[in-house]
Amino acid sequence: MAPVTNGRHLFNEIPTGYPEPGKTTVNDTSQTIDPDTVHLKPGSFLLKTLVLSIDPYMRSKMRDPSIESYSPEYVIGEPLQNFGVSVVLRSKNPAFKAGDHLYGYHRFEEYSIRDDVASFIVLKNEARLPWTVYVGAAGMSGQTAYFAWKEYSKAKAGEIAFVTTGAGPVGLMVIQLAKSQGLTVIASAGSDEKVKIMREAGADVPFNYKTTSMRYVLKKEAEFLGHCCSNSRTWRYFGYRYWDNVGGESLEAALDAAASGARFIECGMVSEYNTEPYPIKNISKVFTKSIKMSGFLVLEFMDKYLSEFYEVIPPKLASGELKYTEDITRGLENVGEAILAVQTGKNKGKSVIVVAEA
Amino acid sequence: MAPVTNGRHLFNEIPTGYPEPGKTTVNDTSQTIDPDTVHLKPGSFLLKTLVLSIDPYMRSKMRDPSIESYSPEYVIGEPLQNFGVSVVLRSKNPAFKAGDHLYGYHRFEEYSIRDDVASFIVLKNEARLPWTVYVGAAGMSGQTAYFAWKEYSKAKAGEIAFVTTGAGPVGLMVIQLAKSQGLTVIASAGSDEKVKIMREAGADVPFNYKTTSMRYVLKKEAEFLGHCCSNSRTWRYFGYRYWDNVGGESLEAALDAAASGARFIECGMVSEYNTEPYPIKNISKVFTKSIKMSGFLVLEFMDKYLSEFYEVIPPKLASGELKYTEDITRGLENVGEAILAVQTGKNKGKSVIVVAEA
Repeated sequence: MAPVTNGRHLFNEIPTGYPEPGKTTVNDTSQTIDPDTVHLKPGSFLLKTLVLSIDPYMRSKMRDPSIESYSPEYVIGEPLQNFGVSVVLRSKNPAFKAGDHLYGYHRFEEYSIRDDVASFIVLKNEARLPWTVYVGAAGMSGQTAYFAWKEYSKAKAGEIAFVTTGAGPVGLMVIQLAKSQGLTVIASAGSDEKVKIMREAGADVPFNYKTTSMRYVLKKEAEFLGHCCSNSRTWRYFGYRYWDNVGGESLEAALDAAASGARFIECGMVSEYNTEPYPIKNISKVFTKSIKMSGFLVLEFMDKYLSEFYEVIPPKLASGELKYTEDITRGLENVGEAILAVQTGKNKGKSVIVVAEA
Repeated sequence: MAPVTNGRHLFNEIPTGYPEPGKTTVNDTSQTIDPDTVHLKPGSFLLKTLVLSIDPYMRSKMRDPSIESYSPEYVIGEPLQNFGVSVVLRSKNPAFKAGDHLYGYHRFEEYSIRDDVASFIVLKNEARLPWTVYVGAAGMSGQTAYFAWKEYSKAKAGEIAFVTTGAGPVGLMVIQLAKSQGLTVIASAGSDEKVKIMREAGADVPFNYKTTSMRYVLKKEAEFLGHCCSNSRTWRYFGYRYWDNVGGESLEAALDAAASGARFIECGMVSEYNTEPYPIKNISKVFTKSIKMSGFLVLEFMDKYLSEFYEVIPPKLASGELKYTEDITRGLENVGEAILAVQTGKNKGKSVIVVAEA
């Protein structure tokens, strides 16, 4: 085989607001590679990238290196990185053999030579799911929902869950996990189309936060469900689980609406990724309402729950018992637009880049 | 015995800022009682109040009844209520006999006729502590520190604790619990005299937040102790325990200074009791740093830890192994001043009203 272009999508410039396609990140076709003959040192292996995930948190990696955060920042001039699926073309490492499909942390390039075995696991895919699902409902998104709901929700049937960005891949899984445990689920998203997706996934009270007041919904539903405390003289313990992907005003409304003993699972704060943070005036509710608020990293729970996750979730996704949605973009050259769409909420399901079919 | 005055201290008016002695609360001497002859219905018992506790949270009970909070509001024209110690003078209830000393939720009056057995426990006082200690280091203050530190800190030797209002009765106990587990303790209070108290209790880095920048101390000490992440490229898990009695700017500084995996124990927010809340701009640190933030009520843990507390703590207070401070005021007529002093931080130790010596 003659050398082929090894297309890459590079980080180019630190954005100040929303990332700009072609400016914040740029496509690059200057490199070539011959997959058949390229030299592999002992211990290394050659990957062909099939699928890459586009996630909201990627914005936090587009920062000045002097700002520390939970995930290393992208390096200007280097390819972006995120979770993806690849196929091993050739291997000089006993851990992997040609034909293995690997899930792990990939560079945004068509072909990669790697030697960091620990960054990848082999996907057996006994459920015969499309590879794209392994970066979404069966990948980090689904794992985030599954691990943190399991660890922090302490949910019981009959309780209320309030899920933000409920039509996103994490939120949609949380809705379904909560419903499967018998909770009543209130869920918010930013369009009527997303409301429909949330309803189909089982949400009892899906609503569009752009056209319906979140405070109104929370108050009305809590009263309807007999859990509201605002007019009662008795302080009651009851379960209110808030899955926060948004932060800001939404978090403030949830704190006001929460009753005693609520559990807030802090998964993300997309409202703050591209704009100045909204100042929270009622954090004292954490103290006055005995709220437990948990931030977490999905990596914390890999050892504890990952095997269980792969046993439980993919078969249910394959059978249709658990629903998922995807918004597939083809080609590394369209990564910039896909990133922006996820930041503005314009994607219609889990955003995935298909780099190659097989 | 002829009838005697039954002095009471009444809630009189909802304050808008700091409570005003003689206005927010008023002393009342209009009632009389004859302890020897007053009629007791079957099941009731007559108490002589010895000691009453003055605590910061009492401010939250001086509110409009339409505002719900974790503790019922005071009723205008009725005596204040809080934890205290009394002696049983006469009893028509088999649960208590004359001479028993009771700890529980008392009315601010010299004599009380009660029938709510569940509000009280009998203090055996085998440690021979003064009764005042049973509303402080051996009472709700000590219990608050002991229960929540035990439940939420997950502290290990070598970790850092940062304790606010460290010279208060709760903070002082937290400092000593943390030190006994081998933690390094940073502790803040609002006067040099309080800094001395915290140092004597074992705090490694006690400081006066009115004269020293909290942000400076947290940064400098964290760097000195080798735990600071600001210049490192590696994200590390380490223990940082923040005992929050203050909220507001202090909480914001603690969130900025915290490293990944920190645990915030939200015990109170005295900075917000009398003034408008300070808006927190960095609550997203909970998410980016995987912080666990826990509000709680001391009552949640009575069943779990109270027996253990009474076994462990009073003997250590009696032997001097655990230190405590008290600020004793004599007479119900001085309750208003004592409440104000606690709100402004002018008290010199656990604020206690001695109503009668025995």
